[in-house]
Amino acid sequence: MQNFVFHNPTKIIFGRNTIPSIGPETAAWGKRCLLVYGTGSIRGNGVYDAVQTSLREAGLEVIDHGGVRSNPLLSHVREGIAKVGAHSIDVVTAVGGGSVIDSAKAICAGSAVDHDVWKFFTGKKSIKHALPLTTVLTLAASGSEMNSGMVITNDETREKFGFGNRLLYPRTSILDPEATFTVPPSYTAYGAVDSIAHVLEYYMTSEDPATPVQDRLMEGLVRNAMDACDRCLADRRDYQGRADLMWTATLSLNGLTGAGLGRVGMPMHMIEHSLSALYDAPHGAGLSAIIPGWLRWRSREDDRKIIQLGERVFNFDRCGVPRSAAATIHMLEKWFVRAGCPVTLDDLNIPAADIPAIAENAVRLARVWRLERYSRETIAEILSLCLAASGRV
Amino acid sequence: MQNFVFHNPTKIIFGRNTIPSIGPETAAWGKRCLLVYGTGSIRGNGVYDAVQTSLREAGLEVIDHGGVRSNPLLSHVREGIAKVGAHSIDVVTAVGGGSVIDSAKAICAGSAVDHDVWKFFTGKKSIKHALPLTTVLTLAASGSEMNSGMVITNDETREKFGFGNRLLYPRTSILDPEATFTVPPSYTAYGAVDSIAHVLEYYMTSEDPATPVQDRLMEGLVRNAMDACDRCLADRRDYQGRADLMWTATLSLNGLTGAGLGRVGMPMHMIEHSLSALYDAPHGAGLSAIIPGWLRWRSREDDRKIIQLGERVFNFDRCGVPRSAAATIHMLEKWFVRAGCPVTLDDLNIPAADIPAIAENAVRLARVWRLERYSRETIAEILSLCLAASGRV
Repeated sequence: MQNFVFHNPTKIIFGRNTIPSIGPETAAWGKRCLLVYGTGSIRGNGVYDAVQTSLREAGLEVIDHGGVRSNPLLSHVREGIAKVGAHSIDVVTAVGGGSVIDSAKAICAGSAVDHDVWKFFTGKKSIKHALPLTTVLTLAASGSEMNSGMVITNDETREKFGFGNRLLYPRTSILDPEATFTVPPSYTAYGAVDSIAHVLEYYMTSEDPATPVQDRLMEGLVRNAMDACDRCLADRRDYQGRADLMWTATLSLNGLTGAGLGRVGMPMHMIEHSLSALYDAPHGAGLSAIIPGWLRWRSREDDRKIIQLGERVFNFDRCGVPRSAAATIHMLEKWFVRAGCPVTLDDLNIPAADIPAIAENAVRLARVWRLERYSRETIAEILSLCLAASGRV
Repeated sequence: MQNFVFHNPTKIIFGRNTIPSIGPETAAWGKRCLLVYGTGSIRGNGVYDAVQTSLREAGLEVIDHGGVRSNPLLSHVREGIAKVGAHSIDVVTAVGGGSVIDSAKAICAGSAVDHDVWKFFTGKKSIKHALPLTTVLTLAASGSEMNSGMVITNDETREKFGFGNRLLYPRTSILDPEATFTVPPSYTAYGAVDSIAHVLEYYMTSEDPATPVQDRLMEGLVRNAMDACDRCLADRRDYQGRADLMWTATLSLNGLTGAGLGRVGMPMHMIEHSLSALYDAPHGAGLSAIIPGWLRWRSREDDRKIIQLGERVFNFDRCGVPRSAAATIHMLEKWFVRAGCPVTLDDLNIPAADIPAIAENAVRLARVWRLERYSRETIAEILSLCLAASGRV
């Protein structure tokens, strides 16, 4: 195990009827609140009204900043930062999924400096101050509700870049599984894939080969993400399934899985971000199209961890499935397909001819994230392995 | 899953050569530090000197309060509280295992009030203020380094009572696995048993029968505690084993395993506390003598969770071991014996004739902890099941 610091100060309030806590939790940090949200779903399911009521009852003045879209845009973040200045905002409340929370984090960081917020994402500036943030989660996926990271797409350069700083941990996050009852099957599955991808990135790229505690934690999270998603797809109002998926997604990227692994990378996310940026693919859909191919590429060099994953998550010994990396990847592909997710670039209508352009975009992020081994050529090679599934799906 | 609040603000600094961080981490909270420690081991292994040096180099004035013993005593806590007053202490630093950290927590709480500190433990008073606490851990066992609980023995009444409050989370805990290299085999194993017991208490007493995320987390922790302990017993200077055991023990009682379970009890600890209080048995040894009997008692009513534990932790399907609660309990007993731990009251030289007196002591704590179903008679019945092992050990 490698040395680490673990310090996650986010307060999680989890369960039914917890949204009315957002007012008091937010009022602890100020008087004027910027309310960041998406493009409409929370208007339909009552969450928006419940949050507004709670914030106002707690004495907060609320300025709206709706309209965050999937693969959230830098231009919209900049508009939010301008509102913070215009209205002397003290605290930001995000109501939504990862895109909304990430946008809110960028607003929190960008409002505390004179330079443009994008400089954080390109590594030219570091965060030293940030407005306090509270959140109400409406999608089990990104883990942003309990971590310090954010990902934003620059609509001018078509770069989808990520960045993190410990000042960006939400102060409080409200996780009410019922707020996800209206998430459609596709996005429910994409969220589960995102959660699985977060785990697999760390599981597969750990600098330390001996991390048994973290391995079992991660294997349990992958199994739970699949099981919980299955329940939600069978019945979108299955509270138990929604709750399991929500808490699994949060635990999948809150710092625990990576503590002790040493340096880790997120190469699958790195490549996927180009699919999102260039084709506006849903993040989880892009990931499920990348994961099998990336794992096949990885297995050529070292297949031990992939086999261990199969043994423990898919119970190879019990099912009579042969132990091999290919078998693990096949089982994952099968589950992705069953959940309605793409498993190839073709499923996303991305032709092989586009691979050079995707690789060209992705390698820029590889440099920012210091994933040195991912040259343009390597990324293109991985993408070529994403053209076809294992054939038995 | 039940509603929950999870908010664990402790900063963990984990790994080799991390002890020199204790000075700066402690100096953030004040100028005058009470240094709480045990009865000598840290003098021999260099930890005491490293901590003193770091605290002084950070500009702290250090007042010693050594002499905490296993099953820490209220009288010694009271002496610490008197020192806090006499020396205008700002911050407390604990260097040791659970007994030392729990004593320090009691001093932190007791120093902030005019009444006697024992009133917290009997439920007559609640904690509203506490001095800040930092810790350097030297034993993987209690989890106290990342939780808000404490257990103290009243040397007048022979009551070993526990209590918790969120103001008692350490601000920073330093976990250097090398600081546990000198822990003898017996206490290494008792620590692993304590960690396993913390997991099993929640696993077995969860109010909610459907907690798959938490179940897999807990099953992984039990497996890891055994595997890591085996490594440490084979080679006490095995860094990887010491690190795995340390982080496993911390994760086993830091609030994560219980989040979502609803009301849980700690009946095995409740009974064990009487063994510690009456016979001064090491806590982990008392637990390993209680766990098999308690599980046998529990399996009469409901054996599903015990069978699931066996399937997932002992790989029943893979080993050809029949699926039954008895088989799970037998596997646990076998591991306890292999690790050198008692599995019956007889192993602790406690005669059957003492059962009524132990039950009489334990039922007092059952009332304080509101474990209503544990009458004097029920506790005696469980203890009678702790007289003999399953016979195949």
